[in-house]
Amino acid sequence: MDRKAAQTLVENMLAGHRLSLARLISKVENRDSSLNLIMEQLYPHTGGAWILGITGPPGSGKSTLVDQMAAHFRKAGKKVAIVAVDPSSPFSGGAILGDRIRMQQHWNDPGVFIRSLGTRGKHGGLSHATKEVVLVLDSARFDVILVETAGVGQTELDILRLAQTVLVVLVPESGDSIQVMKAGLMEIADVFAVNKSDRPESDKLVRELISMVGLMDRPAGGWAVPVHKTEAIRDIGVSELLKALESHHHFLAESGAREWKASEFLKNEVMDILSERLGLRLQEAFETKAGQKLLKQLLGRRMDPYKAAAVFEKIKK
Amino acid sequence: MDRKAAQTLVENMLAGHRLSLARLISKVENRDSSLNLIMEQLYPHTGGAWILGITGPPGSGKSTLVDQMAAHFRKAGKKVAIVAVDPSSPFSGGAILGDRIRMQQHWNDPGVFIRSLGTRGKHGGLSHATKEVVLVLDSARFDVILVETAGVGQTELDILRLAQTVLVVLVPESGDSIQVMKAGLMEIADVFAVNKSDRPESDKLVRELISMVGLMDRPAGGWAVPVHKTEAIRDIGVSELLKALESHHHFLAESGAREWKASEFLKNEVMDILSERLGLRLQEAFETKAGQKLLKQLLGRRMDPYKAAAVFEKIKK
Repeated sequence: MDRKAAQTLVENMLAGHRLSLARLISKVENRDSSLNLIMEQLYPHTGGAWILGITGPPGSGKSTLVDQMAAHFRKAGKKVAIVAVDPSSPFSGGAILGDRIRMQQHWNDPGVFIRSLGTRGKHGGLSHATKEVVLVLDSARFDVILVETAGVGQTELDILRLAQTVLVVLVPESGDSIQVMKAGLMEIADVFAVNKSDRPESDKLVRELISMVGLMDRPAGGWAVPVHKTEAIRDIGVSELLKALESHHHFLAESGAREWKASEFLKNEVMDILSERLGLRLQEAFETKAGQKLLKQLLGRRMDPYKAAAVFEKIKK
Repeated sequence: MDRKAAQTLVENMLAGHRLSLARLISKVENRDSSLNLIMEQLYPHTGGAWILGITGPPGSGKSTLVDQMAAHFRKAGKKVAIVAVDPSSPFSGGAILGDRIRMQQHWNDPGVFIRSLGTRGKHGGLSHATKEVVLVLDSARFDVILVETAGVGQTELDILRLAQTVLVVLVPESGDSIQVMKAGLMEIADVFAVNKSDRPESDKLVRELISMVGLMDRPAGGWAVPVHKTEAIRDIGVSELLKALESHHHFLAESGAREWKASEFLKNEVMDILSERLGLRLQEAFETKAGQKLLKQLLGRRMDPYKAAAVFEKIKK
């Protein structure tokens, strides 16, 4: 896509044209050659959305909860985008079904936009694409962007870093609260929801989480992570949960933490861009005669990867 | 650690000193400042090991199978290293317990080395560290290096790329074979094992896998992915499985695929090294006055991340 076409597409999207939005997102996902042109134009229009990350184990009813939250936001007149990311294995058991089931509740509502993203590329490819898709939605003036990921591997943690507020959804069956600790979930959660709270053992999990939160180091004036019970499927506890999430949103703005998070996100974003370019350049370099020679030396163990990296750094300059 | 100390440590390790090996691995894991010195010295001594990747869902008995495989290799007089990587979430349910249970069978055997690696860093940090740990073990003249990962997220796929042979372990309970297809497992598996084969439904899974393998595009003379039944806990089918894995090892050498895989691995390795350096440089750049100014402009939306990336690329030169 050339500069002119990219410009027109972005302008149409900014004017509220739905199809242009969908097309732009596809271009971002597929790393279109006009990607930087697109992002340059979009970027000044971003910063208005509240980006909410949601994670939890398969079977926690996370998607149902996200849908209920979206419905509440809609009732309050807010435009909502849902980005469902599933980088996980076939083994996770609970692939995010994404658009399919969801459309039943929201398909006819222009105030809701839903997109699923799957595993693509490497070297952080998925998290990079996801972050840029969120920036596109942000520029399209969605009030709330719900980013849902399954599990908490490295990719998911990287994705959750773009969120201003992170909700971790658990169910009593998700097992030892020790595992929550082990996986660094305590550090990333701003709010906990214990879903399917009609089940036995849910009170026990709530108590455990509360005591774990209490044990955390928290600076004076810091955010106290609340634990909420929900039963998403019957819409129980969801509006209270939303109030807690909104409190966190206000807390971020008042405490200055919001700017700090935005800085971290932007540094990451620049790194992702440079890293992606580096990968493409390196691929090309290996195709050249000099690159092929270097590869032969590497294969023959007459050169080690660290020396080869140094050679490439010189070539680049 | 200075050059002299790094040199001595590597020399001791190459001479077979066990403690030096463990210390070197820790230095690699923790990204010691002498990392490139270490790797430069090691690298000429690598290339002798057979690197075998093993993946499968939690509960597939993957670790038990790996232990049995190690026992068989030991009986054949081979030195075996096991690297267990678990980048997965607390939700996966089947964290690799690693050293603990294993030590029962192997703790007294100097021909077996076991190490667990957990989630560290980002931008491919874990997969990079894992690959270098494997190179260390390779230089330490282990005949077989078993690299075990849970699940098949991006990190795991990246890790499995370093293996010459990939074994995918499934159990009837791991669900739809369609999921195997969806996750790109068909592309990565060189051999399938259906473990816990005493369970009902295991024959059905074997049949499904065989028919899926049959549907794959395979160039003339290409490798036909075999499906084996095992019952690791009772050592049933393990020696037949090993024969299939060894056939693949020979196939690689004869077909030239081994060199191709080694090339891909080396390209990746150079990319990882450059990417890690880029990250460190960028971190430093953001600490400078110019970097702080740029960050302010980014936060104020007067500069977009793509332009900022271009600015940083100029600074670097």
